Amino acid sequence: MARTFLRYGAGEGAHWAEKIGPVFRPLVDPYASTGDLILAARAGRAAVDQKAPPLDLAAVTILSPITRNQQLVAQASNYRSHILEVGGDPDDLAGNVFFGKAVSSLCGARDPILKPARVQLLDYEIELGLVMGQAIRGPQKIDRANLADWLAGLVIANDVSARDLQVPEGQFFKGKSFRTFTPTGPYLVLIDADDIAGLEALELSLWVNDEPRQHATLEDMIFKPAETLSELSEVMDLDPGDLVITGTPAGVALRPPGALVQKIAGFLPPRVRFRKFIEGQLKRRGYLQPGDVVRAKIRHPDGDLDLGEQINAVVSA
Amino acid sequence: MARTFLRYGAGEGAHWAEKIGPVFRPLVDPYASTGDLILAARAGRAAVDQKAPPLDLAAVTILSPITRNQQLVAQASNYRSHILEVGGDPDDLAGNVFFGKAVSSLCGARDPILKPARVQLLDYEIELGLVMGQAIRGPQKIDRANLADWLAGLVIANDVSARDLQVPEGQFFKGKSFRTFTPTGPYLVLIDADDIAGLEALELSLWVNDEPRQHATLEDMIFKPAETLSELSEVMDLDPGDLVITGTPAGVALRPPGALVQKIAGFLPPRVRFRKFIEGQLKRRGYLQPGDVVRAKIRHPDGDLDLGEQINAVVSA
Repeated sequence: MARTFLRYGAGEGAHWAEKIGPVFRPLVDPYASTGDLILAARAGRAAVDQKAPPLDLAAVTILSPITRNQQLVAQASNYRSHILEVGGDPDDLAGNVFFGKAVSSLCGARDPILKPARVQLLDYEIELGLVMGQAIRGPQKIDRANLADWLAGLVIANDVSARDLQVPEGQFFKGKSFRTFTPTGPYLVLIDADDIAGLEALELSLWVNDEPRQHATLEDMIFKPAETLSELSEVMDLDPGDLVITGTPAGVALRPPGALVQKIAGFLPPRVRFRKFIEGQLKRRGYLQPGDVVRAKIRHPDGDLDLGEQINAVVSA
Repeated sequence: MARTFLRYGAGEGAHWAEKIGPVFRPLVDPYASTGDLILAARAGRAAVDQKAPPLDLAAVTILSPITRNQQLVAQASNYRSHILEVGGDPDDLAGNVFFGKAVSSLCGARDPILKPARVQLLDYEIELGLVMGQAIRGPQKIDRANLADWLAGLVIANDVSARDLQVPEGQFFKGKSFRTFTPTGPYLVLIDADDIAGLEALELSLWVNDEPRQHATLEDMIFKPAETLSELSEVMDLDPGDLVITGTPAGVALRPPGALVQKIAGFLPPRVRFRKFIEGQLKRRGYLQPGDVVRAKIRHPDGDLDLGEQINAVVSA
């Protein structure tokens, strides 16, 4: 059965709580990292403090459930609907494509998203985050049957993106790594083998100022979690608590010109091409501005898996 | 004055040694991470064990001087000569472009480079590595005058690259993150303010089977270290011991078709375009094969800064 954890700040330290019935109860031990919490929970430790009162969520700071010692790896182009809206062909992909994000981009599910002064095209991307449960040190055949051995839990992530850096620069690292560009949580939901069958029914939903922008299920996802972790295992080591965010469905603000126009524009000098791209995007209304509020949820329609709700206001850095 | 450190394995643990005259002498304390060593050395600790005999380099394993708790950030397209050889225009860059590499790609300066079975186009890239000396938690104006406050030291890095993944996938993370794809060291050379003036005279040289392939100085570098660290500080946090590798000069095996041909090829379906790219590159002789030996050096011509020599054999994974 899934277990729901929350990491919070109160006083000087960071602590964990677990949802027990309708309330969150603090854990006895602090657990310095996400990996430490996961290893303890999987070993049958990570007990709640029976003597402590339920957590007053209004009196604490909700922190990212992923600590900054962990790795943060992201998938590009992983929902058919998003690939189509940005002019790509989901049936002609070069591979399961990854990029890195700086861990200092992690922030909590109630923190402001800081819009850097240099960024004009600030965009959102709701993503399901996979949280590792076991160390990977070499290639592994991971499939639905053994996925729960490797995958410990799930979180909501928002892969906030400065399109005016990401698109011209080509490499996604910088435009997606600014501080506060990865709101994560609020909950870390640890799953078990019984939850795997229901993964594809998870619904991702994102609103800007209560206007629906993104809504999809994992049915739209191209490279599913087991396939993705298998491929990553061929390449790199992962540790318990490391986070893999799995791409976004349709509905982002970015809407580049069609594929043919992009190819023709390839003949322009890069600076001219990207000036035109930015001018065109600035006419669109979907990009995030200071004062906007982004809400995001990932849950089962029947409510038995619920990763909580992010509410992040956009603020000038 | 620069100080030269080496990290090595002997028995069960990892240890540090410092070059004193012609020999390396073990340090008293072990220092679990690169950051710990740097903080100790900058605080006037990190003393050699006066009672220990000089290190027998033939009897130990030379380890990467960058430990895996650190971050690994890479710069793309940072030498004019390399941008020209791959069909780009060094006077029309979109920005100072970064990408992430998995820290599990780090290996030592004598370790084999493991060629994955799926990779056909294995390439090398000698790069100067910048090792951070002070935590960055927000934007900083870093210039030549204060660079030594932020930059603790230098290492040789080889940014080994699977071109048949990197180029078709567009994002560089996967094709450059396989285990052993970042030989680093052998030395970590800690510099001080007196060494900054000489940085641009550093010579980078790489050979494959004793055939010279890459040779340049930092004069060819576009975004210099102070400018690069300033820009990174606007985006992300860095900690002492974190590694920023700064791009490669001309001489790699990759030689894509000219810019105009690339633009015309943009009209082909991606799979066709990349099949043709790989077929074309397979006709070139420069790519690394099992049995090849890559050597790399970075040093001052007058020898007063010397980052040592990498000797890495290519082996089938």
